[in-house]
Amino acid sequence: MLSNSLMKKNPRTRDLEKTRSEILNAAFDQFFRNGFHATSLDQILAQTNLTKGALFHQFSSKLDLGYAVVDEVLTKMIADRWIDPLSAFENPLMGVLHQLHLNIGKASQRNLNLGCPLNNLVQEMSNSDQKFQRHLSAALKFWIEGIESHIERGKKNGFIKASADSRAVAEYIVMSHEGYYGLIKGLRNKGIFKALVAGLEIYFGTIAANSPKK
Amino acid sequence: MLSNSLMKKNPRTRDLEKTRSEILNAAFDQFFRNGFHATSLDQILAQTNLTKGALFHQFSSKLDLGYAVVDEVLTKMIADRWIDPLSAFENPLMGVLHQLHLNIGKASQRNLNLGCPLNNLVQEMSNSDQKFQRHLSAALKFWIEGIESHIERGKKNGFIKASADSRAVAEYIVMSHEGYYGLIKGLRNKGIFKALVAGLEIYFGTIAANSPKK
Repeated sequence: MLSNSLMKKNPRTRDLEKTRSEILNAAFDQFFRNGFHATSLDQILAQTNLTKGALFHQFSSKLDLGYAVVDEVLTKMIADRWIDPLSAFENPLMGVLHQLHLNIGKASQRNLNLGCPLNNLVQEMSNSDQKFQRHLSAALKFWIEGIESHIERGKKNGFIKASADSRAVAEYIVMSHEGYYGLIKGLRNKGIFKALVAGLEIYFGTIAANSPKK
Repeated sequence: MLSNSLMKKNPRTRDLEKTRSEILNAAFDQFFRNGFHATSLDQILAQTNLTKGALFHQFSSKLDLGYAVVDEVLTKMIADRWIDPLSAFENPLMGVLHQLHLNIGKASQRNLNLGCPLNNLVQEMSNSDQKFQRHLSAALKFWIEGIESHIERGKKNGFIKASADSRAVAEYIVMSHEGYYGLIKGLRNKGIFKALVAGLEIYFGTIAANSPKK
């Protein structure tokens, strides 16, 4: 989809978008590995073939780049990993469990040691920059609202009890994801994932409708 | 208890213990407010009436002080806030909910914005110092095992189903605490606490025994 839309644009616009995406991906990667404060613009540029001029043409500061990473990279990642795939599941609760197994259960301990990229930035940046906090909070809301809409669908299709509070269920699901990442990172033990996800399955059992409509 | 044991010691030992505790409390406070990396030893000392010499007499480096904060301040805080008070409850699940309401539900948004001191250090330090990671992981295990022993008691007293896996329940409870702190910090909205704790109550409902022994 991206490549189609790029093809319709003039080469100048296409280059700018390509450069922007290259910088954003490198920045995401470095922030995820080292944290925001411990990452320099030079480290980010070293992962690309671009100059500082190219970076400053699009981002006025490291903070400005940080906000864009949240809005453009992290939000897309949340959609790709946790929200959009649920559409393939008639019962969204099965989709949530499937994505958890795929994205956490099957991830390497090495990757899980890095934690959740969104949660890491929340921990590091929420209190040091108010604007960062607002971008991070918006990304969390985007995640909760995305899950909420699938829970609503599950209620309409009769997989989830009509009495369940869709927003509260979505908040509980996102809280669990952040809790899983935090505890697995802290304990260096993805072995506990099974017990953690079993707890969520028990909770899902209590909000699942007894006989889904077909 | 501390003052009794201090009184039996000679003045020199007493002074060393008092100094140690003063430094540890100031260090905890500064790490919690600013993060570990962003805190200087001067900032910590400024909160006390002590000299750098007094600090280095007991701690060989800022990292060494960090490990001691985890082992001596954080672990005690976990015991005081989340484990020991459960003894007052016949049903430990009621105790867990009570402490959540007390320590999170009744906390100010301002305090909750700082997050969980343990989770903050896990996020910041787990990947930058292996020894820090081991101390943090030990503190998390101390928390999980403390809760686990109360869950075991709840099973013996007939408040919790004998079929419940005490360790898994304890892991799920600690995961939830970290998830609550993370999400409330990220969203700057303690209003969601009610929905989050309702999810845990639903889970507790599924492991509660139907008719507790008296």
